[in-house]
Amino acid sequence: MSVQKIQIFDTTLRDGEQVPGCKLNVDEKLVIARQLELLGVDVIEAGFPISSPGDFEAVKAIAAQTKEITVCGLSRAVEQDILTAAEALTHAKRPRIHTGIGTSESHIAFKLRTTQEKVLERAVEAVKLAKRFVEDVEFYAEDAGRTNNTFLAQVCEAAIKAGATVLNIPDTTGYCLPEEYGAKIKYLADNVRGIERVTLSTHCHNDLGLATANSIAGAINGARQIECTINGVGERAGNTALEEVVMIMRQHPYLKLQTNINSKLLSETSAMVSHMMRMPVQPNKAIVGANAFSHSSGIHQDGVIKHRETYEIIDPRDVGVPDSSIVLTARSGRAALAFRLQKIGYNFDKSTLDKAYASFLEVADRAKEVHDKDLHVLVEKANLLVEN
Amino acid sequence: MSVQKIQIFDTTLRDGEQVPGCKLNVDEKLVIARQLELLGVDVIEAGFPISSPGDFEAVKAIAAQTKEITVCGLSRAVEQDILTAAEALTHAKRPRIHTGIGTSESHIAFKLRTTQEKVLERAVEAVKLAKRFVEDVEFYAEDAGRTNNTFLAQVCEAAIKAGATVLNIPDTTGYCLPEEYGAKIKYLADNVRGIERVTLSTHCHNDLGLATANSIAGAINGARQIECTINGVGERAGNTALEEVVMIMRQHPYLKLQTNINSKLLSETSAMVSHMMRMPVQPNKAIVGANAFSHSSGIHQDGVIKHRETYEIIDPRDVGVPDSSIVLTARSGRAALAFRLQKIGYNFDKSTLDKAYASFLEVADRAKEVHDKDLHVLVEKANLLVEN
Repeated sequence: MSVQKIQIFDTTLRDGEQVPGCKLNVDEKLVIARQLELLGVDVIEAGFPISSPGDFEAVKAIAAQTKEITVCGLSRAVEQDILTAAEALTHAKRPRIHTGIGTSESHIAFKLRTTQEKVLERAVEAVKLAKRFVEDVEFYAEDAGRTNNTFLAQVCEAAIKAGATVLNIPDTTGYCLPEEYGAKIKYLADNVRGIERVTLSTHCHNDLGLATANSIAGAINGARQIECTINGVGERAGNTALEEVVMIMRQHPYLKLQTNINSKLLSETSAMVSHMMRMPVQPNKAIVGANAFSHSSGIHQDGVIKHRETYEIIDPRDVGVPDSSIVLTARSGRAALAFRLQKIGYNFDKSTLDKAYASFLEVADRAKEVHDKDLHVLVEKANLLVEN
Repeated sequence: MSVQKIQIFDTTLRDGEQVPGCKLNVDEKLVIARQLELLGVDVIEAGFPISSPGDFEAVKAIAAQTKEITVCGLSRAVEQDILTAAEALTHAKRPRIHTGIGTSESHIAFKLRTTQEKVLERAVEAVKLAKRFVEDVEFYAEDAGRTNNTFLAQVCEAAIKAGATVLNIPDTTGYCLPEEYGAKIKYLADNVRGIERVTLSTHCHNDLGLATANSIAGAINGARQIECTINGVGERAGNTALEEVVMIMRQHPYLKLQTNINSKLLSETSAMVSHMMRMPVQPNKAIVGANAFSHSSGIHQDGVIKHRETYEIIDPRDVGVPDSSIVLTARSGRAALAFRLQKIGYNFDKSTLDKAYASFLEVADRAKEVHDKDLHVLVEKANLLVEN
C-alpha cells in the first residue's frame, strides 16, 4: 500500500473551548487559529456559531483570517443552526459546515425522543440544507460508538447521497475499545455504498483513556481524517490529543500514514493553548508534559547517557524541546552524578566519585531534586577537591 | 471462557516515586501503601532498595506494615541489588523480589555492552539467587517491547526453569501499538514452555499515549497481571493509569476480566497521591480529572439532564465522585439554564426563560463560568421576577 495522507481536523476551538474554564475571547481564538495553520492542520473547527453571539463572531473572524486551510462551523441538524453556521462562514475561502444528529438507541430514545426513520430524514434534510451554502459538508452520527453498525451504515449512505463529503463517526462517550472502534470503521468502509467518494473521520473521547488508541485503530482501518485537540482538551476527559496521534504515525512509518504536521511546533503550540485556556498539562502527559523527556532513575539515566535511544523513542528536538534532561534525585545512580559533575567542571576518579555519591545520596534523600548549585556545595563540604 | 482474575500490581511507590519532584518520605509512603491495600491492589511495589538508604528503609517499613497483600522490591540482575532487596523484605508476610535485565538489541549492545548468551546467564543467576530468599520471584525482560519475540521467549523459558513465578514484559519506552503488544503477549503464551505455571504481566509506558490500550491488549491476550500507578505517574510520560485499566474492565464485562479494586476509592486515592507527590492531575484526565464528569456544552447538558447515560458511561458515584456537574458557560443551552434556575428556586415559563437566556449569554460571553450567585443577579437585573 502506498503512503496515505491523514487529515488533521483540529477542534481545540470548538470541542476544546466548550470546557468549563477554557473560554477564549475572539482575539485569543485568532491567535490560536493562526498557530494551528502554522502547525499544519488541514481543518480548523472554529466554533458552534448558533451557541452564542461571541462564538458566531469568532467563527466569522477566523473564517476571514484563514486563507489556506478549511474552516469549519458546527451545527445540529436544525435549520437555524445550519443557517447561522453558513452565515458565519460567508467569508471563508474553504468553508465546511459540520452537521449531524444522534444515531444510537440511547440518543434516539432519551435525548431526541424520536425514531430511526425520523433521524434518517433529519440527517438527509440537514446535509441538503448545508449543501445549499457550501460544497464541503461533514456529517456526524452522534454516539456512533454505541450505534448499531447496520443502522449506522444506512445513515452514512443516506448522508452521502444527500451530498456529504466527510462522515464523522464519533465515539461520543469514549466507550469503545480500539478493536471494536477499528472494526466499526472497517465495517463502514466495506459496506457503505459510495464510501470511496468521501472521507471517513474519527472523533474519539477519552473517558476511559483510549481516545488516542481508538483514533489510530480508525486510521489503520480506513479513516482518513482524525479529529483532535491540542493537549487533548475537551468535554469531560477530553478528546484525542493531536500531538499523540501525530507522533504515533511518525514513529511507526510501517503504518504508512502521514500528516502535514510540523512536529517541531508541537511543544510551543501546547504551551500556548495551555496558557490561554488556563488549562494545565500534567507533567506526565505524553509528548508535551514537562517530564516527557526527563530521566530520573539511575538505570534510565545511565542508559540515556550511553545511548539516547535506550530509553527515548522520540528525539525531543523533533517536538520542539531543546534536549532531554537528566534530573538528579535519590533514585539517580553514579553514572548520572558523574555526568552532571563533569558538565559543571569536576572530573573525579572512581574513589572520589564513590565519596561524592555517598554525600549525594544523603542530600538527595532529604531534598526532592539536587541542582548544580547543591553539587558545588556538596563537593566543597565533602572536601573532595582536596583529595582529588 | 470463565471470568479471569487480573492482578493489579501497583508501582506508584517505585516507578511513580522515581519521578523528578515526586519524592516521598517514609511516613508518606506508609500512608499511601495503606490506602493501596484498602483500594484492593494485589501487589505493592514498594521501592528499589539498593537505590538509596531512604528507599531501603521505606521498603522495610511497608513490608512490616502490610499483612494481606504482596510487597515487592525491585533489583537489577546484580548480586548486591538482590541481597539488599531480600534484606528489606525480611519482615514481609508475602514478599516478592522483582529482578531482571535488558533483552532488546539496543539494551544489550549499548547499555549492557554484552551478548544475548550473557544476558540469558545473568537472568538465570538472578532468578536463582532471588529464589534462595523468597518463593515469589518476578522476572522482568527490560525493553521487551522492542525485543525480538524468539529471543524473548528463550529468556522467559530460562527464567521459568530458574524458578520465576511472574514474567513481566515491559514496553519500557512506550513504543508498541496495542495490536503489536497484544500479539507479543499471545506469542509468549503460545510458545514458552511452562508458561501455564506462571503469571504473565504487562508494564507499559505512556510515551505515545498508549499505555492503557497496550495493557488491556495484553490482558485480552493472556496477561493476568497489570503493572500500573495511580494517576499514571511515572518516568517521563508515566505508566499505565490504574484507574483507567480498572474501569475499562469494569465497563466492558464481556471481556470477562475482573479485578479486586474497590472503584469507589479511586477518586480519593488519586487526590491523596497527587497531593503528596505534588503532582497535578490535569482537569481532562480520564476517570480522576476534575472535569471527568463535567458537562458544559448545551447539547451535552441537555442530554444528561434527560438521561444520564446519554453522555456518561460511568456513574460518577462508582469512582467516588458525588455527582456529575452541570457547569454553565457560553456554550450552555436553555435546558441547562432552566435546570440550574430550577435548582435555585426559579420556575420560569418559556418566554421568561427566553429573556433569561439572552441575558445569560451576554454574561457568559464575558465570564468563563456562570455561578448560582451570578444567576440571582441576572434574574434581578433583567426584572424577570416581576414579569413572571
